[in-house]
Amino acid sequence: MSGPRNLVVAQSGGPSPVINSTLRGLVEAARSFPEIGHVYGARHGIEGVLKEEFIDLTAQSPEEIALLRYTPAAGSIGTCRYKLKPQQTEDFARCLEVFRAHNVGYFVYIGVNDSMDTANKIAQLAQQQGIELIGIGGPKTIDNDVGDSQFKLIDHTPGYGSTAKYWMHAVQNANEENAGSCPADPVLVMQAMGRKIGFIPAAARLADPGREMPLQIYLAESPCSLEQLADNVNDQLSRSGRCIVVISEGFNVGSIGERKDSFGHTQFSSSESTVCQTVVNYLNRVGLKAKGSARGNVPGTDQRHSMAYASTVDLDEAYHAGENCAVLAARGESGFMSTILRNPGPIYEVTYGKVPLAEVANSERKFPKEWITPSGFDVTDDFIRYARPLIGNEMVSLPMIDGRQRLARLAPIYVAQKLPKYVPQADRAKS
Amino acid sequence: MSGPRNLVVAQSGGPSPVINSTLRGLVEAARSFPEIGHVYGARHGIEGVLKEEFIDLTAQSPEEIALLRYTPAAGSIGTCRYKLKPQQTEDFARCLEVFRAHNVGYFVYIGVNDSMDTANKIAQLAQQQGIELIGIGGPKTIDNDVGDSQFKLIDHTPGYGSTAKYWMHAVQNANEENAGSCPADPVLVMQAMGRKIGFIPAAARLADPGREMPLQIYLAESPCSLEQLADNVNDQLSRSGRCIVVISEGFNVGSIGERKDSFGHTQFSSSESTVCQTVVNYLNRVGLKAKGSARGNVPGTDQRHSMAYASTVDLDEAYHAGENCAVLAARGESGFMSTILRNPGPIYEVTYGKVPLAEVANSERKFPKEWITPSGFDVTDDFIRYARPLIGNEMVSLPMIDGRQRLARLAPIYVAQKLPKYVPQADRAKS
Repeated sequence: MSGPRNLVVAQSGGPSPVINSTLRGLVEAARSFPEIGHVYGARHGIEGVLKEEFIDLTAQSPEEIALLRYTPAAGSIGTCRYKLKPQQTEDFARCLEVFRAHNVGYFVYIGVNDSMDTANKIAQLAQQQGIELIGIGGPKTIDNDVGDSQFKLIDHTPGYGSTAKYWMHAVQNANEENAGSCPADPVLVMQAMGRKIGFIPAAARLADPGREMPLQIYLAESPCSLEQLADNVNDQLSRSGRCIVVISEGFNVGSIGERKDSFGHTQFSSSESTVCQTVVNYLNRVGLKAKGSARGNVPGTDQRHSMAYASTVDLDEAYHAGENCAVLAARGESGFMSTILRNPGPIYEVTYGKVPLAEVANSERKFPKEWITPSGFDVTDDFIRYARPLIGNEMVSLPMIDGRQRLARLAPIYVAQKLPKYVPQADRAKS
Repeated sequence: MSGPRNLVVAQSGGPSPVINSTLRGLVEAARSFPEIGHVYGARHGIEGVLKEEFIDLTAQSPEEIALLRYTPAAGSIGTCRYKLKPQQTEDFARCLEVFRAHNVGYFVYIGVNDSMDTANKIAQLAQQQGIELIGIGGPKTIDNDVGDSQFKLIDHTPGYGSTAKYWMHAVQNANEENAGSCPADPVLVMQAMGRKIGFIPAAARLADPGREMPLQIYLAESPCSLEQLADNVNDQLSRSGRCIVVISEGFNVGSIGERKDSFGHTQFSSSESTVCQTVVNYLNRVGLKAKGSARGNVPGTDQRHSMAYASTVDLDEAYHAGENCAVLAARGESGFMSTILRNPGPIYEVTYGKVPLAEVANSERKFPKEWITPSGFDVTDDFIRYARPLIGNEMVSLPMIDGRQRLARLAPIYVAQKLPKYVPQADRAKS
């Protein structure tokens, strides 16, 4: 071996309030390992690797790295939706070339299943070519859809707890207005992220584990017609005089002009209409058997970057998952993802472990069907028991300066480029 | 005089994160005045007076009254949109009858211009009939459109500072995602409340007083075509690679199927589409000269009940404005609104005073034209100097229990009804 090797970290996909905590955990833990040289952040995920755009995270002020805890989203080094498809062999070769040029011995990719697949393929390719490169995955997604449905590969993903807590607060606070406003506004419809996977809208139930609110939760996994939904709402109105509807952005309400992102995933926030608007319009036009009207909230990206509502449990776990990436890297555990496993027993506690990237990449977590109540528009106490510990017990305390949040501001310490300019394959195809 | 007289407080219109602080200030201050007996909260505003539905606030536990600080919206006693029109003479007579039956000598109406008008009319009617009734107004609206455009009747309304702070955070956090996400999502459109009045969207500028973000702010007062808006966004994209658009819900983008509430005001949140969606669709269909797509956030009512982002300055001022209502009542200052006036000088400080209800009711505050920049899509440093102190310097610290916000829960201590049942005039007309 030839002394310390550098570590490249990249992020992919949608951000979260805690993604930077994972980054911070990695950078701070890496300082303890003599095997690891500098930690380089690839700008905008794998694109930053391909384009040889690295920011030196080890050279940053420790104060700014610490402030990553209070900095949402991925503004620090950026994320991407660039996908390395198997046939993009030039891209894979380029990654290895760039890593060689910068003495990179460790690559950590923080993201979802696609990213785990990329991290795994790069690690395998390196091994085939006799290149020493440790490939590690870091989990991250507010959707909580990484891993298996038995929660054995990972109990929950960093990011989910914070978005779940966001919904707990959003519904708790909205209920105050819904209860207090006059009969003119009896129905509030709120649209939750999570694509077709119900973990995020389900978290609305955390606002009311005792089931006292007139709250209905519609997951994409439990479809019904607009007529049926309106009937449910009208039933609620006749009982409670008001109703709060939390509905998944992926709930099927007929065509709403969905748009696709570069992964081929539906990008609901760019669609021609929203599920929320479709439901509000249906209720206001024909569905509502009461005075007053339905109104809608579509918080959109706010639910994944609203820092004051982040879960302290989630922030801490994301940090430790990042630390664990550094540990796995230093130990040479190539081909593994840093994971969070829940220990058995009545007290919530977790273990930070490792699971094979290949298993994660080929798994698909769905919202357990048995956690949907027979009514179809609520979730069970088993879900509450699963999700409740993830939102923690305290509010995060945000540092403020001059009336604004004090966010981490990384210095533009870029790593000098050593290779000729390269255009990523998918970008060539596009232009 | 016949000993202490009771005080009835009612709330009208849309809620805010601090409306309950005004209520708390009133209830806590009233304890000090022997002239004031019990404070009764009318359920759902003036409708609660007409229907003789009062909750005894003086009989509540002091702890719950104190927790009103951390309880958003108007869930405690409720608000309404019932308007007392001059021709509803039976309704006015009924108010006085109910007050007489419950030994009510003071009536405090917390709301906007319509409510100030109602409070004033009831006070005048009582005077004409030789009834001792002190009518007082309490200011409240996130829109900041109560009073005059010279800020002499009131500097700002309780509620505005908190919604302004909400937007400061929303834009600051959204900017982290917008900066960090890949070129696939270069444009984020965020829709702000405030109807046709620009104080709320203008507050987005507080996220970036140094004007470093690619932020464009569209007020209804500064209209332009969708083509012009798209040109502005494209210019920003060519300079910055990304753009954040904050747009007023009342910005004219052509018909969006507006609905009216019972005051005859447009209720944008119930419209057939949203300004945000119209802009997103225009950009995605024809307007965007860049790769990737525009997406939209419509936080809706969240901006007026998101408790963690409430301004501590606003919370404190709302409390003192409520205390001042009790002071004005005890002094017999009928026909006045409790107001907040900014003292001259470089340090932000305010005085709690009184202004005639008739003047407030007949005034209409607009967003000062001179605070809109020549570009048409930004606000000036004078606006920043006006609004900056209102958001304060700290985060509010929310009490939590079992993972949820500890909200005030008033006991159902209703005042016994003494009169025959009454159907409010406007309700009769409807049915």
